[in-house]
Amino acid sequence: MQVGFIGVGRMGSAMARNLLRAGHQVRVWDTSPQSIAALVKDGATAASSNEDAFSGDAVISMLPNDEAMLAVCNETTLRKSGAPAIHVNMATASVQCADRLTELHRICGIHYIAAPVFGRPEMAAERNLNIMAAGDPAAIDRVQPLFDAMGKKTWRLGSLPSQANVAKIAGNLMVASMLEAMGEAAALARAYKMDPLEMLNVVVTSIFDVPIYRIYAQLIGKEKFDPPGFDLKLALKDAKLALEAGEKANIPLPFASVIRDNYLDALAHGDGGKDWSVVSRVALRRAGLA
Amino acid sequence: MQVGFIGVGRMGSAMARNLLRAGHQVRVWDTSPQSIAALVKDGATAASSNEDAFSGDAVISMLPNDEAMLAVCNETTLRKSGAPAIHVNMATASVQCADRLTELHRICGIHYIAAPVFGRPEMAAERNLNIMAAGDPAAIDRVQPLFDAMGKKTWRLGSLPSQANVAKIAGNLMVASMLEAMGEAAALARAYKMDPLEMLNVVVTSIFDVPIYRIYAQLIGKEKFDPPGFDLKLALKDAKLALEAGEKANIPLPFASVIRDNYLDALAHGDGGKDWSVVSRVALRRAGLA
Amino acid sequence: MQVGFIGVGRMGSAMARNLLRAGHQVRVWDTSPQSIAALVKDGATAASSNEDAFSGDAVISMLPNDEAMLAVCNETTLRKSGAPAIHVNMATASVQCADRLTELHRICGIHYIAAPVFGRPEMAAERNLNIMAAGDPAAIDRVQPLFDAMGKKTWRLGSLPSQANVAKIAGNLMVASMLEAMGEAAALARAYKMDPLEMLNVVVTSIFDVPIYRIYAQLIGKEKFDPPGFDLKLALKDAKLALEAGEKANIPLPFASVIRDNYLDALAHGDGGKDWSVVSRVALRRAGLA
Amino acid sequence: MQVGFIGVGRMGSAMARNLLRAGHQVRVWDTSPQSIAALVKDGATAASSNEDAFSGDAVISMLPNDEAMLAVCNETTLRKSGAPAIHVNMATASVQCADRLTELHRICGIHYIAAPVFGRPEMAAERNLNIMAAGDPAAIDRVQPLFDAMGKKTWRLGSLPSQANVAKIAGNLMVASMLEAMGEAAALARAYKMDPLEMLNVVVTSIFDVPIYRIYAQLIGKEKFDPPGFDLKLALKDAKLALEAGEKANIPLPFASVIRDNYLDALAHGDGGKDWSVVSRVALRRAGLA
Repeated sequence: MQVGFIGVGRMGSAMARNLLRAGHQVRVWDTSPQSIAALVKDGATAASSNEDAFSGDAVISMLPNDEAMLAVCNETTLRKSGAPAIHVNMATASVQCADRLTELHRICGIHYIAAPVFGRPEMAAERNLNIMAAGDPAAIDRVQPLFDAMGKKTWRLGSLPSQANVAKIAGNLMVASMLEAMGEAAALARAYKMDPLEMLNVVVTSIFDVPIYRIYAQLIGKEKFDPPGFDLKLALKDAKLALEAGEKANIPLPFASVIRDNYLDALAHGDGGKDWSVVSRVALRRAGLA
Repeated sequence: MQVGFIGVGRMGSAMARNLLRAGHQVRVWDTSPQSIAALVKDGATAASSNEDAFSGDAVISMLPNDEAMLAVCNETTLRKSGAPAIHVNMATASVQCADRLTELHRICGIHYIAAPVFGRPEMAAERNLNIMAAGDPAAIDRVQPLFDAMGKKTWRLGSLPSQANVAKIAGNLMVASMLEAMGEAAALARAYKMDPLEMLNVVVTSIFDVPIYRIYAQLIGKEKFDPPGFDLKLALKDAKLALEAGEKANIPLPFASVIRDNYLDALAHGDGGKDWSVVSRVALRRAGLA
Repeated sequence: MQVGFIGVGRMGSAMARNLLRAGHQVRVWDTSPQSIAALVKDGATAASSNEDAFSGDAVISMLPNDEAMLAVCNETTLRKSGAPAIHVNMATASVQCADRLTELHRICGIHYIAAPVFGRPEMAAERNLNIMAAGDPAAIDRVQPLFDAMGKKTWRLGSLPSQANVAKIAGNLMVASMLEAMGEAAALARAYKMDPLEMLNVVVTSIFDVPIYRIYAQLIGKEKFDPPGFDLKLALKDAKLALEAGEKANIPLPFASVIRDNYLDALAHGDGGKDWSVVSRVALRRAGLA
Repeated sequence: MQVGFIGVGRMGSAMARNLLRAGHQVRVWDTSPQSIAALVKDGATAASSNEDAFSGDAVISMLPNDEAMLAVCNETTLRKSGAPAIHVNMATASVQCADRLTELHRICGIHYIAAPVFGRPEMAAERNLNIMAAGDPAAIDRVQPLFDAMGKKTWRLGSLPSQANVAKIAGNLMVASMLEAMGEAAALARAYKMDPLEMLNVVVTSIFDVPIYRIYAQLIGKEKFDPPGFDLKLALKDAKLALEAGEKANIPLPFASVIRDNYLDALAHGDGGKDWSVVSRVALRRAGLA
């Protein structure tokens, strides 16, 4: 397929590369010329502008936040001749942004599909992403070969695009809750003169024997928050997406509220650029143990 | 080995049976004659009283709560001739109770080992328990064959018995937090017209692909809280153990506080006898969705 | 003085009327022709547009929210000939909005003063407002006669306008916290078979013997939430202003988080149009008492 | 009347002194001989023991906690000849303790009245206490002259003694909530470069113009937590009384939970012996401002 790809940072470039490997033609755009050049070396075509990338059978976007997405995706872009019939937004977006883009695309006669993913850059590189897709089923069918080239599995979550975003936001809340819970558990261990790592290891090699727990148990147990896999400042953005999604639908989310407050505590203590598991330090610090 | 076993309810009887299978001689006591009779049929000896069971090379206790434990374990019991050299308490106990029993046993010249477990009755039956042991290392060495007969793995967590209890309490807090997080996620799904089960399935077959998540995703997704695997009233007891352990060491535990408040909400709505995953109904109810 | 007045709803009209009584010339604008007409009857001049009202020695604005304010106050308005030298915004605004307006006015060479108030419409009518002013001290001096005509007392809180907004937001958080605390206290009373009103009356005629407590004790004790003095939907807006102000400066505000969650619970149960003291019903409902 | 008085610390001695002034005969007991001696100088009689003080027309108790109360008030004491017909417990007690004492006294044929107070030692000295009484109405009538001698006003709250304790506990929760709210407000002020005292002064001389707010605004605004009027360690005890009362009746109390967690944070930072308004330092510290 002929695919435009907007936003080729760490995640996007790994995903675009897998599209190339699967034989698709990819026209990339990014604000960083180096990011574009790296992919051109691997067989992609450089788009001359965001609008130029917005062409082909489908366009995929993977931009860092709602503002960046809304800045490049407007009525002019969507109405230009040669715009693709399907736009697949694979970034984490707010419900509000997804709803707004859905409406905008509808007016312009283009399918909008939300397809956020679970996975980090190295998992993207290994085609190991879990993709949650929502939007028109027939349109999803048409881009399924692209999902197959980028992910391990695609989950269909409804015909309203924002539903996929809600699923992503809810999943993130579950991961953030895991980290806060590990932080409170580690503080208990420390206060009772145990090695938190040893204590967490019991749990993550028995009842919670799954990579995500084992990985974060090491980071929290060893208090090793640099370099960040995903930094706390971005995690705050995600916690706010959950709170906003809750607010829009009148859902109290007390765990999300605790998490948000603890992230602010971490930011106030200079930990915004550290891995988000640094939230565990808040529990230690409040207990006078950090 | 000659082993006394006090408290042969669902967990205790499965554990005692594995001791018998491994060739140990077991003298059991319980307030329920039927529970004793069932084990005698499988090769155990019936003790005539709690004190009578408190004999042999070691005694294992598996009573439902601190009060029951403290009621049967006093200076008279410990000082009687024929009392075993080692008492292994495998029940979930408070830090305070563990410290008190440690001191009482020390005075009476008996080793006290705390060895709480992760696992449910069916896992106990399959010798699939994770045992966390703390206390005098040499004494633990002596009862290790018993642990090997009952569990999959034994973790040594320190020389102060209450440390094993803290680890158990902290692990429970992590599981309780998982349930609350799933409940909030499910409420988001419902509010945005998705099937919570479908949404949770994405997460528990990808990033959280481990039995405990998969099992509870079914219960929460299908709102199937009967019969209870572990009822909410008992879960409240565990949440309080966490809060008390935190309080004793000046550790704020905001997640445990949210959980406690939500359990009270569940109790106020008649759900105390349901499976503790019924806490997910609190999130739905507060959002006007239950 | 010659004063423009933008936004003459319940609060604004009472305030504008006091300016007229004190002998000032007032040129009013509002989206409601009736609101304008009522003030013209009392001696005001009708402006033909928002821009037309933006004239004279000073302009006062009292619009319902940030969006309304930002919609009428832009560079065109500020740069037109005849624009007043001082703009006094007396509405509750976000820190972000205040900072943005401060910068916009600075560029256009106009003084921007934030002067939010404590008080309800009937207090505005009685010239019984407490005014918190922040901005250039000399500019505040110049409009002090206007404040004297509208309020009981003016508090000077700094030279950065948003500081007055923070004070207003913080004060609102204290009032909202009072209501939540009364709600929890009332739930305790009800659960223990006491009349909540009687119990609250003890407190509000002894340690908390001040009108705001006495008034709300009646509403909460009698569960009389209609008609609303200030409705819960607006209270949520204020709670969010506190959370946003906290977030901007990395300040965890756990009470504000609890309040926000409880407001969502109230909204989910159809109480958004009731007096904000209806938050007390959340405590009752969660306890199975409503 | 002939009155026994058990527990003449700072509060109790001030109250006993007012009984003496009103012409009652008072027989005092305390674990501190100096405390007894000081009152004997003022006209009281020294009891030779707690049991000896438990005599006359009525006995009043004012002990620091439930444990002290339960230690001196048992079946032996209550059944001795010469025991008074009415026991008035004016201390802050848990619901559970009140219920237990009510039952114990009932069995022994003695009236038990709970009559906790709002007020600090200096208010006790000025006969300025607010007394909340619950129990048998006729028995309260008989001791009303004693209440009149000690307090400004007596509130009758029901015929079950623990109801007065619930009212006291709920009132304390409202005061504790006031302090936490002031702390969060002060943190906002500080973060936005305002003097917290100045900001709080606006609020406590306008909408919250009542001594308790004004007093604590000074302490919090000036961060003056020594000497303590009421220390944080004791405040934690009161927060727990609220949580326990809530738990007994299945009432979630999210504010009480936040307060408890913040008190633990304060204790972990060495502030347990400071005035309980030091909870405001938790908000500052979490925001990186302390």
